[in-house]
Amino acid sequence: MGKKINIKNEQSFITFIQNLNKDKATSKHKKILRHIGDDAAVFSNFSEISVFATDAMVDGVHFDSNNSNWLDIGWKCAVSNLSDIAAMGGIPDYALVTMGISKDYPKEKYLEFSMGINEALNIFNCEVIGGDIVSSKNIFINIAIIGHIRDKNFLSRNNANSGDCVYVTGELGGSAGGLDLLQKGKNIEDKYSKKLIEKHFRPYPRLDISQNIINEKITCAMDISDGLYTDLEKISIESKVDIRIFLDQIPIDENLCNYNLEKQRQFSLYGGEDYELIIIGNIEKISSFNKQFNPKGKIIGEIVKKSSNPKITILDKNKKTYTSNHQGWDHLK
Amino acid sequence: MGKKINIKNEQSFITFIQNLNKDKATSKHKKILRHIGDDAAVFSNFSEISVFATDAMVDGVHFDSNNSNWLDIGWKCAVSNLSDIAAMGGIPDYALVTMGISKDYPKEKYLEFSMGINEALNIFNCEVIGGDIVSSKNIFINIAIIGHIRDKNFLSRNNANSGDCVYVTGELGGSAGGLDLLQKGKNIEDKYSKKLIEKHFRPYPRLDISQNIINEKITCAMDISDGLYTDLEKISIESKVDIRIFLDQIPIDENLCNYNLEKQRQFSLYGGEDYELIIIGNIEKISSFNKQFNPKGKIIGEIVKKSSNPKITILDKNKKTYTSNHQGWDHLK
Repeated sequence: MGKKINIKNEQSFITFIQNLNKDKATSKHKKILRHIGDDAAVFSNFSEISVFATDAMVDGVHFDSNNSNWLDIGWKCAVSNLSDIAAMGGIPDYALVTMGISKDYPKEKYLEFSMGINEALNIFNCEVIGGDIVSSKNIFINIAIIGHIRDKNFLSRNNANSGDCVYVTGELGGSAGGLDLLQKGKNIEDKYSKKLIEKHFRPYPRLDISQNIINEKITCAMDISDGLYTDLEKISIESKVDIRIFLDQIPIDENLCNYNLEKQRQFSLYGGEDYELIIIGNIEKISSFNKQFNPKGKIIGEIVKKSSNPKITILDKNKKTYTSNHQGWDHLK
Repeated sequence: MGKKINIKNEQSFITFIQNLNKDKATSKHKKILRHIGDDAAVFSNFSEISVFATDAMVDGVHFDSNNSNWLDIGWKCAVSNLSDIAAMGGIPDYALVTMGISKDYPKEKYLEFSMGINEALNIFNCEVIGGDIVSSKNIFINIAIIGHIRDKNFLSRNNANSGDCVYVTGELGGSAGGLDLLQKGKNIEDKYSKKLIEKHFRPYPRLDISQNIINEKITCAMDISDGLYTDLEKISIESKVDIRIFLDQIPIDENLCNYNLEKQRQFSLYGGEDYELIIIGNIEKISSFNKQFNPKGKIIGEIVKKSSNPKITILDKNKKTYTSNHQGWDHLK
């Protein structure tokens, strides 16, 4: 697909990627009519409705190629895309991977990267069926995933209504805490620090519960990739609603216990890349979902009213508006 | 979809892109269930079989942001993807556009770029339904297109058989000639030079004839994006065949008339980005297609035999093997 870079072992690189999928014999694999190695991939659809997402990561912005394991970078790129599919209530099927690579960079790193992508995709029965390799001074990765929707029901950001409650599927702030430790070069021997760093490098998309959300007839969701506050703002804009959040209800990652409470709150409110889901719906549906499938989740707020100028309010336990003193935190820039 | 860059007018940029498609009321538009502005796009499929391609372009490699019109860059990015769909005999439906953009770069350039993409996609009834915007020192663009296959018949690189003839759909070398003029900073006042430069900046994908190819029951094709010779090599590897090309049969762009014959041959053999198609099939089918739909195309060679170590031979009019003296031409590196 397109103008490839002329590195001597480009063909062997493509063969390597092809071989990663060679021994698959799943029903998904059988639906592929043309795989890696043609102008485009061709496949039979799984249902009437498709879901289509893309996500890019750039060296120096989303990861640091000098201080990361490439298996982890690949994993995270895949997860950030899989998480978008989970947020729509979709089932991921196939991926195209574009790599913008520097000729001078050790080629085995790109092989590790491909293995990291495959490791994450395989867990969720999603397969790389094509892509593009281009030359770029600054390394970047783009993944596009196509998936399908069962039974025509999906989740979206624009279905929040007055009176709905706002729910998150799990603890927040862990990934941001891990990044903070890495940036400060702090001692990471204790078990909490190790856990935080693992959460930063190896997040999970909530595909494990997204079909259960659909089954409860809930229709509004979004994944938390940019941070709870920022992502709530996006829902409020798309749904045109005011949202009220109760600060003490936000589930904070238990491994942040070495930080003071204010710092924990900042990580859980403004930290990105936890890839938990925000779900919005009526309390009966949400409670039923929570009880049956996801007891670790929590109701954290409510949709106040429709609004042409949507806003988010955070209330502390005294019902006073909470204003964070966070500023200049790199992860958010 | 993912971690966006925090430029102040990101939302207004997304709104601009949304508005580019706002007034559409085509049947295609009506099948879109979730458009730009959610974690992923959702749409109803057009047929049982989908075709899925991606292609990236990088500043300084595929284009030069300082010396190009951004409308043209957008056009060409879209065309290189549309051409992949044409090469499979597919019909393009929806696109996701990723832009890796530098914060310091004038934002109106990105708006022009988006307009260029839309201009090309609209001609072929394809629509942008999502994407990602990320921060990157070095500008890059990635497009992923999903399309569909009518009636289960498609084209691929691995269907060439002994005795088949090799056909190209139009004149070659024009885009490479245009690039050569631009790189040399030559006078571009004469009509031939102007045409070559137009071919370089504004190529067309052969979606106009790709369904006719399918209708003739031809099954082997590929688009010429990297250059005739390089792309024939790819077909020979995928189909495991030896290919013989007759040098004097290759249709050379008539606007290359100011170059000597050897240079014309180099452009048409090794120059990329003309986006014509190579078609391979039996002579009756190819001749029927040519006569009815594409009289400008030409049979340029034949499939010699199946081979485990595929090779391309180019014969001159004396049936001697042609060896080019081309070397170190930037466009090919």
